[in-house]
Amino acid sequence: MKVVIGGASKELGEAIANVLNVRPSPVQTSKFADGETNVAVTGDLFDQEVYVVQSTSSPVNDSLMEFLLMVDAIKRVGAKKITAVIPYYGYSRQDRVIKDNHMSSALSAKLVADMIGVDRVIVIDLHSSQIEGFFNIPITNLNCFEVFVEFLSQLVYGSGEQDTCTSIKKEDLAIVAPDIGAIGKARAFAKAMEARHDIELSDKIVVVDKYREKAGVSQVMNIIGEVANKNCVIVDDLVDSGGTLCNAASALKDRGAKFVVACITHGVLSGNAVEKICSSALDKLVITDTIFPKFTKTDKIEVVPIANVLADFILKTQGDKNAL
Amino acid sequence: MKVVIGGASKELGEAIANVLNVRPSPVQTSKFADGETNVAVTGDLFDQEVYVVQSTSSPVNDSLMEFLLMVDAIKRVGAKKITAVIPYYGYSRQDRVIKDNHMSSALSAKLVADMIGVDRVIVIDLHSSQIEGFFNIPITNLNCFEVFVEFLSQLVYGSGEQDTCTSIKKEDLAIVAPDIGAIGKARAFAKAMEARHDIELSDKIVVVDKYREKAGVSQVMNIIGEVANKNCVIVDDLVDSGGTLCNAASALKDRGAKFVVACITHGVLSGNAVEKICSSALDKLVITDTIFPKFTKTDKIEVVPIANVLADFILKTQGDKNAL
Ligand SMILES: Nc1ncnc2c1ncn2[C@@H]1O[C@H](COP(=O)(O)O)[C@@H](O)[C@H]1O
Ligand SMILES: Nc1ncnc2c1ncn2[C@@H]1O[C@H](COP(=O)(O)O)[C@@H](O)[C@H]1O
Repeated sequence: MKVVIGGASKELGEAIANVLNVRPSPVQTSKFADGETNVAVTGDLFDQEVYVVQSTSSPVNDSLMEFLLMVDAIKRVGAKKITAVIPYYGYSRQDRVIKDNHMSSALSAKLVADMIGVDRVIVIDLHSSQIEGFFNIPITNLNCFEVFVEFLSQLVYGSGEQDTCTSIKKEDLAIVAPDIGAIGKARAFAKAMEARHDIELSDKIVVVDKYREKAGVSQVMNIIGEVANKNCVIVDDLVDSGGTLCNAASALKDRGAKFVVACITHGVLSGNAVEKICSSALDKLVITDTIFPKFTKTDKIEVVPIANVLADFILKTQGDKNAL
Repeated sequence: MKVVIGGASKELGEAIANVLNVRPSPVQTSKFADGETNVAVTGDLFDQEVYVVQSTSSPVNDSLMEFLLMVDAIKRVGAKKITAVIPYYGYSRQDRVIKDNHMSSALSAKLVADMIGVDRVIVIDLHSSQIEGFFNIPITNLNCFEVFVEFLSQLVYGSGEQDTCTSIKKEDLAIVAPDIGAIGKARAFAKAMEARHDIELSDKIVVVDKYREKAGVSQVMNIIGEVANKNCVIVDDLVDSGGTLCNAASALKDRGAKFVVACITHGVLSGNAVEKICSSALDKLVITDTIFPKFTKTDKIEVVPIANVLADFILKTQGDKNAL
């Protein structure tokens, strides 16, 4: 087994290789003066099973092109099988044609799926699971509930003497979908929490339902479910500008929530999202390192490592062909 | 016939549409905050013959992705036939696998060719004509000799009373290949000049042959052919850093060349190429607008428009299916 790591997932790729006990294969990536990406790999990938680790995160077009060129170079030296490990799959929010004002959009997530050109794909928490259907090759869409559940267990069972930021009580939990689209994810997450913490959460799902009274007026946040004196866990696949998240947090606090923590897989965090989140009503944001965190460390934002989730799955499906 | 213009070829696309007497179809291109490209086109491309104009020039990965998303959107609204007009085909210098120091590169120009995904392609002056073979669809690789020959005719027949920068004598012409790879192009250009100017140039081809005496010492410029008191026309497909060009120009001047003008199709002009060229021994650089010129206008660098070459070919192959 060989591991080739792209520039967008250097640290994560090395962590995965470490768990797999494989030395990453050399890869050269550079840019010519005119901005063209230049990639080369070693010839000893011939006849090997190769895992290529690269999130197609910002700058997305560069990360994607680097990934495609790595795969091209690996194919040309005669690899036996290539598995793409794409922890964060860019363009996943463009997963349907948007028709608006006589204009019709591209279906970018499908275009990218058709480009990937490998034997098998592993991703984490796609924006919509429909995207799996865009691929004509085996794809596994892993979740990372286990790392969040583990992280929360420290809060849930932490010493109650500390402030609410470091300890929440499991009896008072509510699992929050920040919009209608996230209900399924919230329910699945609740199940994972139940299994680990011996609690009943099926009646503790809360939904933030946004709507406008009429065009032009600002959105109303309607909270469906009980949050007063609750420790709220917001669950979502990605946080970008932070707008949805911060608004949801303050709506929950307004309704009497005690503590609001968000468990969100992909920290896109564009623009001034980090500052916005730091000064918001949210008590804590937990993200994974599917996207390499470029912001300076803050107390409010915690990054939990995802490498084990990917490495464990790779190991499992190496030995046991039925585990796919 | 419909024309859709990408952001990298806005001015050129509009010039082509103008000659074709077609109003460019609306296209929306933007970037989301996280850098993902977002493209939409109008529904009235249904059942139409669509020409998509976009050079894949710097920033190349963004220009390429924008092109691919435009084509995806155009297909999804049901266009009948899509012709890609790619005046400058990025990644064309990565047209073979480079093996170096146990590393093996991607074959980027082929990877891109496989992505293009249209019915037919029109390009100008590919870095190597082998790239035509990378496509499994009809491709036309146009040259732009006619615009250069026309431009030179002003110099050749200009009033001899002015300085050497504005007038050169056709009797004293030499056509210069700045490296061995450009000889074919120089010879073809000489033929085009002969046809237009009623001169004999077949024995006036000069080659700049670079070599190193031994590793580590600087390159020697060996000029094959007669240049003393000649008006030298350097012919090449692209100028990037300007290094090759400036060195060739001073080598020619050192051997007694009177006037050195370069006719080069694609002005990549990375980094400080423009300043380098302006302070070099080269008397004049003529490029086309296959790549939108981003530098501030200088007397030394002249940009000649390419729109007619493309529009004329499009019109010709519209009416006459045999002209392809
Ligand atoms: N990279 C992006 N950044 C922000 N919005 C996006 C992005 N890609 C797609 N969208 C928009 O997000 C919406 C889809 O998000 P969702 O409704 O959560 O699936 C659509 O309106 C898309 O146009
Ligand atoms: N965008 C680029 N900028 C500079 N050099 C490049 C670029 N793409 C490829 N090359 C290199 O240029 C050489 C090919 O140029 P040529 O010999 O003129 O065909 C190879 O060594 C390539 O690695």
